[in-house]
Amino acid sequence: MTASVEKWGVFEAAFAGPAGGNPFVDVTFDVEFGFANRRMTAPGFYDGDGVFRVRFMPDSEGEWSYRTRSNAAALDGRTGAFRCGPPAAGNHGPVRVRDRHHFAYADGTPYFPFGTTCYAWTHQPLDKQRQTLATLRETRFNKLRMGVFPKHYVFNENEPLYDVYERGADGALDFDRPNVVAFRHFESQVAALVALEIEADVIVFHPYDRWGYCAMTPDQDDRYVRYLVARLAAFRNVWWSLANEYDFLLDVKPVARWDRFFHIIEENDPARHLKSIHNGEETMPFDHRKPWVDHVCIQSWNVKRTGEWRREWGKPIVNDELEYEGDISLAWGDLTAQELTHRSWLTVTRGGYAGHGECYSDPDDELWWAKGGTLRGESWKRVGFLRAILEEDVERGLTPLDPDSFPWSRVSAASEGDYRLIYLGEHQPAVWAAGLPKDDRAYEVDVIDAWAMTITPAKRVPCPVYPRLRQRGGALSDPKPIAAFAVELPAKPYQAIRIRLAQR
Amino acid sequence: MTASVEKWGVFEAAFAGPAGGNPFVDVTFDVEFGFANRRMTAPGFYDGDGVFRVRFMPDSEGEWSYRTRSNAAALDGRTGAFRCGPPAAGNHGPVRVRDRHHFAYADGTPYFPFGTTCYAWTHQPLDKQRQTLATLRETRFNKLRMGVFPKHYVFNENEPLYDVYERGADGALDFDRPNVVAFRHFESQVAALVALEIEADVIVFHPYDRWGYCAMTPDQDDRYVRYLVARLAAFRNVWWSLANEYDFLLDVKPVARWDRFFHIIEENDPARHLKSIHNGEETMPFDHRKPWVDHVCIQSWNVKRTGEWRREWGKPIVNDELEYEGDISLAWGDLTAQELTHRSWLTVTRGGYAGHGECYSDPDDELWWAKGGTLRGESWKRVGFLRAILEEDVERGLTPLDPDSFPWSRVSAASEGDYRLIYLGEHQPAVWAAGLPKDDRAYEVDVIDAWAMTITPAKRVPCPVYPRLRQRGGALSDPKPIAAFAVELPAKPYQAIRIRLAQR
Repeated sequence: MTASVEKWGVFEAAFAGPAGGNPFVDVTFDVEFGFANRRMTAPGFYDGDGVFRVRFMPDSEGEWSYRTRSNAAALDGRTGAFRCGPPAAGNHGPVRVRDRHHFAYADGTPYFPFGTTCYAWTHQPLDKQRQTLATLRETRFNKLRMGVFPKHYVFNENEPLYDVYERGADGALDFDRPNVVAFRHFESQVAALVALEIEADVIVFHPYDRWGYCAMTPDQDDRYVRYLVARLAAFRNVWWSLANEYDFLLDVKPVARWDRFFHIIEENDPARHLKSIHNGEETMPFDHRKPWVDHVCIQSWNVKRTGEWRREWGKPIVNDELEYEGDISLAWGDLTAQELTHRSWLTVTRGGYAGHGECYSDPDDELWWAKGGTLRGESWKRVGFLRAILEEDVERGLTPLDPDSFPWSRVSAASEGDYRLIYLGEHQPAVWAAGLPKDDRAYEVDVIDAWAMTITPAKRVPCPVYPRLRQRGGALSDPKPIAAFAVELPAKPYQAIRIRLAQR
Repeated sequence: MTASVEKWGVFEAAFAGPAGGNPFVDVTFDVEFGFANRRMTAPGFYDGDGVFRVRFMPDSEGEWSYRTRSNAAALDGRTGAFRCGPPAAGNHGPVRVRDRHHFAYADGTPYFPFGTTCYAWTHQPLDKQRQTLATLRETRFNKLRMGVFPKHYVFNENEPLYDVYERGADGALDFDRPNVVAFRHFESQVAALVALEIEADVIVFHPYDRWGYCAMTPDQDDRYVRYLVARLAAFRNVWWSLANEYDFLLDVKPVARWDRFFHIIEENDPARHLKSIHNGEETMPFDHRKPWVDHVCIQSWNVKRTGEWRREWGKPIVNDELEYEGDISLAWGDLTAQELTHRSWLTVTRGGYAGHGECYSDPDDELWWAKGGTLRGESWKRVGFLRAILEEDVERGLTPLDPDSFPWSRVSAASEGDYRLIYLGEHQPAVWAAGLPKDDRAYEVDVIDAWAMTITPAKRVPCPVYPRLRQRGGALSDPKPIAAFAVELPAKPYQAIRIRLAQR
């Protein structure tokens, strides 16, 4: 009977091969997959105990075949076939860039990233990891930043559940022998996120290390990236985040190395998952114009620049670290919940996407940002509220209103067709008109309180009339209202105005 | 008897001269003042009814003499003398730039600008003007932005108290004949501010005009600037703000014209008052590197850039429009009181100075920002609190902590010697250590609530220890605390930490 796998599911095949020497290094093994006249190659990988595997994410329904290639006779020229059936409910395929600044799943469903961060959650005790998944199920997060390597840092001094590489007889890590137990565990958690419809933003390298993962040789680094891609690329929810804070590793991995890692992924990932790389210093974003960078991943508190970044890089903007809600004594991890909610709204209403994180101090150092567990803050609920607002109406993504039409650098506004979202943030006008419709079609206008999470039909009032400035060499023209009407607002911060055509 | 005037007071002399034709244009008149071997020239001005005046601010105690020069015989070669005595209490002289980024009065007293804005207050009914002065007396503002010309704009549709130029028989303004009544009134209010120890930041041009002041010819503009300087330069509290929002006038006054206005002031102002110019668009600050610009006057909401501006321009930074507290439907005039207080603290703890303004909507369009009157907001009290904090300890001015020593772009910190002020703003750490002393001298440490206006001795706790990141090719070094101690903080926004040596 032919094996069967759903579209964008994981096809896997296992083969017995040589176990002697170091099969991780000595044995080459890849598999060419065929669908009608299409041919794609997936790297295989050694999974210990003489077993070699290949994984592949088919993207077309129908009959697929494959043929192995190896420098080991037992693994060379093996053939097989499988059938790819329709995707199950909730399976929309991998996320792709769409419309330059936005994302969609492969089946066309829009994807608006609302991610959070649990850098080292897969390295915590299993109970803790179960708790993390249970918490995520209660949130509306749909992306999770997570590192392959364990994390050494303040609040992160425990040993990981598994070493990522095997230890030799001397007890030292052997960076030529991946620990297959660690990788199997990591990928089981990537699969658990698939079930929750959460994208796994997999962090390939990071600088927070006391074990030596940052001191692998260039050859070892390259083999590690290829091995990781071989194991993970068939999971449809994988994103490749080449680094957390790549610039803190520049002494050991200069920019050309990062480019090379991008290329290794391009060479080995037939599914072509999204690739980006995250900076540490505000002033050190990667050069996201490079063609192998799919979207902009940045760290910046300066979120009113989101529109500039869009124009500068021409790619989707995902600000994965606009600082985190919390109370720790590090400035990136102690925002008020109001401020993180505010920055998330600022980002989205300027056409970008914002990541979440939470860092409340804990006697046992159990901080969500690194270890997962439970959420204690308030911004995560507001992030869910914002996601619901977007998904209710937006079909492809928001575009900032023309900054030449109004000083939208002060307040934020974005649109999609007749839909508009104006976010006033730290501004508290009693009446607002800018960005409201100029025509008299039937609009539905609501006032949204981003903090209180309420949506209230707006009370309309006449649009204020602003006299014109002097004109050169002529009389002042008659002032005209800038919109067909204005709306009343409560005099408090964090208000937004939603405008949409009625009877949609 | 020889006339007598205090140091930095106003010496004035009047002379009868020709009244026929147009003395404003036809008669040249200036006066050379002498003190020992020093010679300085002050322009005189026509004050109507055949009277010509000269004003002069002596800066040295002792005997002064003068001699007039004119193309009119009656005004030429007239001589006189006066005695300059010591300054009265509260008279510290004009404000100068000191230490590159700061200000001091001529007598060495530090001057930290905490200004507010009443653009058109001298053009309102006299009762209203008296109310403005009474309000100012209750505040701690020490600078006021005010325009010579009346303002035409939303909420500013009333006619001014006086036309700035005379009207001809046809009722049209004659831009060759200043209205001496208007100028006398304006200077009487500048003098009223002297008595309140408030600097008058005199705005020479602005674009908000329905009367034609923006459409004067270049010759008329030049004569206007010279006339204004002749009348006002002897008032020690005058600052020259060449424009409000100069960039909105670039179609009629290109950059070379602004440079020329600076030069006319340089040529005519023997007191050498501070000169700057204010921009409208965020992206259009004037080129403040030009040597005739004394300090940087800008409009920008992006106040975390204050440190960059200091480095870029190397002059004192006065952000006179970081948006205003209020609730009007214009985005520059509807900040919450918390946000304007926050931006003021952000600016000062990054080594700059912040201006205030208030725009609460009013049924009679009586908004403080333009007309003065009464204050209704909450930020003005906090501005006074911040000024008091600075004046309690700071002797010359704050310097931002080295941004290479810590990521001070996220939170703010500035010092003067052993004195430090750390402002955490939208951050709410439970414990804070960065920027605290590393030595064990006797420090007095307080927690300041910038919003609640409380100062509380800080509770000290051990400094958290942050493990080092990985090191290249070596073992991890022993982690060391970053400060001698840390302080506990309430978990809320708008907190600051003040550190100073005890027993000062």
